[in-house]
Amino acid sequence: MATQDVVAATTKDVEDAVTAINGDLGMLWMLISGILVFFMQAGFTLVETGMTRSKNAANIAMKNLLDICVGSLTYWLVGYSLMYGDTSNGWFFWSGLMQGEGADLFFQTMFAATAATIVSGAIAGRTKYSTYAIFSIMMTALIYPIAGGWQWKGATEGGVVGGWLADIGFIDFAGSSIVHSVGGWAALIAAFMVGPRIGKFVNGKVMPIPGHNQILATLGVFVLWLGWFGFNGGSQLAWGGTDAIGASNVVLITNLAAAAGGLGALVTTWIWYGKPNLPQTLNGALAGLVSITAGCGNMSAIGAIFAGLIGGIIVVFSIEFIEKKLKIDDAIGAVSVHGVAGAWGTLVIGLWGIDGDKGIGLFNGGGASQLGSQAIGVLAYAVWSIVLSFIIFKILKSTMGLRVTEEEELVGLDLSEHGEIAYPGKRDRG
Amino acid sequence: MATQDVVAATTKDVEDAVTAINGDLGMLWMLISGILVFFMQAGFTLVETGMTRSKNAANIAMKNLLDICVGSLTYWLVGYSLMYGDTSNGWFFWSGLMQGEGADLFFQTMFAATAATIVSGAIAGRTKYSTYAIFSIMMTALIYPIAGGWQWKGATEGGVVGGWLADIGFIDFAGSSIVHSVGGWAALIAAFMVGPRIGKFVNGKVMPIPGHNQILATLGVFVLWLGWFGFNGGSQLAWGGTDAIGASNVVLITNLAAAAGGLGALVTTWIWYGKPNLPQTLNGALAGLVSITAGCGNMSAIGAIFAGLIGGIIVVFSIEFIEKKLKIDDAIGAVSVHGVAGAWGTLVIGLWGIDGDKGIGLFNGGGASQLGSQAIGVLAYAVWSIVLSFIIFKILKSTMGLRVTEEEELVGLDLSEHGEIAYPGKRDRG
Amino acid sequence: MATQDVVAATTKDVEDAVTAINGDLGMLWMLISGILVFFMQAGFTLVETGMTRSKNAANIAMKNLLDICVGSLTYWLVGYSLMYGDTSNGWFFWSGLMQGEGADLFFQTMFAATAATIVSGAIAGRTKYSTYAIFSIMMTALIYPIAGGWQWKGATEGGVVGGWLADIGFIDFAGSSIVHSVGGWAALIAAFMVGPRIGKFVNGKVMPIPGHNQILATLGVFVLWLGWFGFNGGSQLAWGGTDAIGASNVVLITNLAAAAGGLGALVTTWIWYGKPNLPQTLNGALAGLVSITAGCGNMSAIGAIFAGLIGGIIVVFSIEFIEKKLKIDDAIGAVSVHGVAGAWGTLVIGLWGIDGDKGIGLFNGGGASQLGSQAIGVLAYAVWSIVLSFIIFKILKSTMGLRVTEEEELVGLDLSEHGEIAYPGKRDRG
Repeated sequence: MATQDVVAATTKDVEDAVTAINGDLGMLWMLISGILVFFMQAGFTLVETGMTRSKNAANIAMKNLLDICVGSLTYWLVGYSLMYGDTSNGWFFWSGLMQGEGADLFFQTMFAATAATIVSGAIAGRTKYSTYAIFSIMMTALIYPIAGGWQWKGATEGGVVGGWLADIGFIDFAGSSIVHSVGGWAALIAAFMVGPRIGKFVNGKVMPIPGHNQILATLGVFVLWLGWFGFNGGSQLAWGGTDAIGASNVVLITNLAAAAGGLGALVTTWIWYGKPNLPQTLNGALAGLVSITAGCGNMSAIGAIFAGLIGGIIVVFSIEFIEKKLKIDDAIGAVSVHGVAGAWGTLVIGLWGIDGDKGIGLFNGGGASQLGSQAIGVLAYAVWSIVLSFIIFKILKSTMGLRVTEEEELVGLDLSEHGEIAYPGKRDRG
Repeated sequence: MATQDVVAATTKDVEDAVTAINGDLGMLWMLISGILVFFMQAGFTLVETGMTRSKNAANIAMKNLLDICVGSLTYWLVGYSLMYGDTSNGWFFWSGLMQGEGADLFFQTMFAATAATIVSGAIAGRTKYSTYAIFSIMMTALIYPIAGGWQWKGATEGGVVGGWLADIGFIDFAGSSIVHSVGGWAALIAAFMVGPRIGKFVNGKVMPIPGHNQILATLGVFVLWLGWFGFNGGSQLAWGGTDAIGASNVVLITNLAAAAGGLGALVTTWIWYGKPNLPQTLNGALAGLVSITAGCGNMSAIGAIFAGLIGGIIVVFSIEFIEKKLKIDDAIGAVSVHGVAGAWGTLVIGLWGIDGDKGIGLFNGGGASQLGSQAIGVLAYAVWSIVLSFIIFKILKSTMGLRVTEEEELVGLDLSEHGEIAYPGKRDRG
Repeated sequence: MATQDVVAATTKDVEDAVTAINGDLGMLWMLISGILVFFMQAGFTLVETGMTRSKNAANIAMKNLLDICVGSLTYWLVGYSLMYGDTSNGWFFWSGLMQGEGADLFFQTMFAATAATIVSGAIAGRTKYSTYAIFSIMMTALIYPIAGGWQWKGATEGGVVGGWLADIGFIDFAGSSIVHSVGGWAALIAAFMVGPRIGKFVNGKVMPIPGHNQILATLGVFVLWLGWFGFNGGSQLAWGGTDAIGASNVVLITNLAAAAGGLGALVTTWIWYGKPNLPQTLNGALAGLVSITAGCGNMSAIGAIFAGLIGGIIVVFSIEFIEKKLKIDDAIGAVSVHGVAGAWGTLVIGLWGIDGDKGIGLFNGGGASQLGSQAIGVLAYAVWSIVLSFIIFKILKSTMGLRVTEEEELVGLDLSEHGEIAYPGKRDRG
């Protein structure tokens, strides 16, 4: 109504407005993705409780609650700074306490909590809760953030020292190695150090200890699959323009790899065992997801399908190998799903990965150099996680002890560690 | 700091920027919606396992996993092309293998998987897994995509041949007919061809076979209700400007229809059976959702409430009719929830649908022409789904066989088809 | 290709475009948030069923279904208008029937349904379903909307009369008081009026009645935690620009408070009971969430952590106090989680709340004035909810009656009120 000064706009005005909006869009996508990744904690709880016995279900729930509670606090306090701090030699980062904010910190926090929670399933049914608590703190405050900085701080640029793995061209888009293998190898060491559950290996024979609720486990896998769309898609860290297309494609091929992984395990067990097996199909879908987590920004749809398919097949045999040959009792197959498939998913970029339209893998004209970088990264994360976990569990073993007593284990950790069982009605229905 | 060339912006520069951002916003909404629709697979698994017996729960989980795994791959490989391909006579579409990409393909894939999964519940507890696998492939690769193209390819325009139903003005915004009725009628044929579970009809009497876990079923309905906001809302296929208002309204009235459907069934059973019944209330809420799926872009809030309310009442009587009169054993009421309510939801647009402010239904001044188009569509999808399903199941019956043996059925499909039970603790708690 | 008129754009053209897009972004965020809040209904169902006995599980599911069905319809019909209507004296609002639309109405509807559902858990196991239905209608149609208008209508401005609490500077960003305390105090009155479950207090001794499924309860807490990101984050009511940063920060500190609350209860029970307790840790996480709901827009990260931590500790003792001292049987601790922690979360703003960079609390230089406003609000909502609930339950008691018969209670409400049990397989596995 009132007279207004008419000011001509420049193309820079328009560009600035677009840049600001794209920033807001990116923040929205990261926040929503972080919310989805948060929900993976529920998925892990369901998979881990469903695939183990009912007498330890409340204990597993308590471990997962601890992971998200402690992980949220430690990662905010020190983890983010150890991962994205500006003072660095390329291996260790630091910027002081309580760094990071908003959607970015929220998103990264959820990754730290995920890395911690991978371990809890492998050592279900015999580990002291207090010992696990210490390890969970070390994982989210130390092991994972330092490992993350090597790659996700970004490459050295403009005077800011970046991660040494980013500097050598290592690719791990959403964390096949950084999150899943680090978690998986820690789980391997943990399961080895804690030792098998009573009754798992009897006179050299491997005894099956089936989980108590495969429907909870199935729901858990669906929840993890759902959350993974945020895990991988959100790792685009932006939305506007080509990022929207990029993140959409990440979600699409994440789903294709999961589907191929599930189908791979389903068909493998059908052929191998004579019947299509539910727990292995669930692990196959998860392995498919882990297998595409590193390469979801560097893979065609067909490439993703084969990465996932092979991941889903590998996991079936890996679980058998760890159980039957290594005689290590990984209660839910976490080492195979996260460690082995994580390594595979990282390496496959060096086999048939792409960068835009260009092949960067051994089999699509990219030579061996990317494969070399990928192998270095896989090895580095394995060594880091194995050595750190070994030291920590060694110290914990000689101080607090790792296992509950035999009596406590037999009665179940719900009652012995928490004083209540998960399904009271089973004993005393009112 | 440095001197910049100041270039004046034109209104077209601004419009182009807005168009690009709106494109990104639309992609974001479709991707998020697709993620929500994905989660419906978990909802279906929970509803179907919860509403059937525990001895078949793992089998149902395996069927749902198969649907999403196979569906994701076949729809990417051929389904999308059969639905949105450019070579067409209005009935069949094709553009070659592996068409579609990004958020669009992801969103559409989840619809295909939904159509397949509707069938699995109806034939729970007696169907061979291998036979179901073949049918699931046919559904996502063939039956659903061809049906979808008739309407969702869009109307013929600018030389590109569109779907014949779109050309006659048929409306099915998010798929009451295309997804739910197609799935529901296939479920009817499947349940009829496979035959009833042992013990369902004894000496002409209908015996109740209650589901083993109504809380899982309730959770499943909440998950489906949640996912439906993406199913219907995402079908706006865009977000910016009027689309934001449109999609928001779609979500709002989807919720109102679900609420009315649940309440309708709750009150109906309270009056009819003397007590408000949980499984029927769950089916009523789902029927409310199906009833608004076609019309969620062409319905006022009041119109949506009555569409859902009537859908929720119909479903109670439809389930009884199919069981008691047709003597067909639909284990979870899928035919009534998806087939019957899907037909109702499609027709109701012809009764009190709107197009913006204009009534297009028989009862709000729009005449009978829209109702005619809706009836043609309902009929066409029913014929297509029934004929195709009949042929496929007929072939499967005379080759692989449809049912497990009587002994396998009695012991439960978990053990006979998959070699493991869903709740091992029930037999051998460790 | 064709010649176009080149029209120069003004800075106002650019600003208008940005404003429109920010509007669309805000709508998107509110819609997604509303979808997350909807899912909290599933969380409440799981927590309430898991923490009570299996014989009443279907009844609880039916109460939660009623809340969302009835709440969606009544809030659309009258609730929104009672909360945001333009005719007002600052205490009561009205604009006619069926006001509100789109994402805004959808989002607000979900809050109303949440307020109703808080009550259902406290009075589980003995309350008549028909009586609960009437109360649920009163809650979503009357008690909650009127309470909401006092604050969320906004302050008086430009001739439009706002809420009296907003006018005195009361802060309740997402409803610690408006939603949770109102629900919690109603739950207190309800539990008091209905009386304890048979067997809860025997000869003056408090008997534990453990819930039947702590894993469902754990899943429920994860679902609630997830939904709370929408509950609090969506209460920003916008996204673009500083709102994106604001809403992201809300989500971040909501998570920190939840983590601190869970950890607070975990450690408290470890010290107090000797073992870390699962149900209390779950309640602690929820209390942490409730404690930050009012202040999530006015709290630093450290402030949020302490608000949540103290909330998580308080809830442990509050539950014991209500049970052992007041001898009121709140079946799941809803009064402590929502009422007590809600009051705490509202008051804490007056202790160490911030407004941007400025301290507004007693302990950070803001004086006592904000604490005074917060206390008035806490008191006002307590009085309103207690008085209204008392009157309604008094009337219901003398007309329909509040409790089922002793026989019905002993057999379980699933069978007596709904004619079916939640887990039929437990009696008659087929």
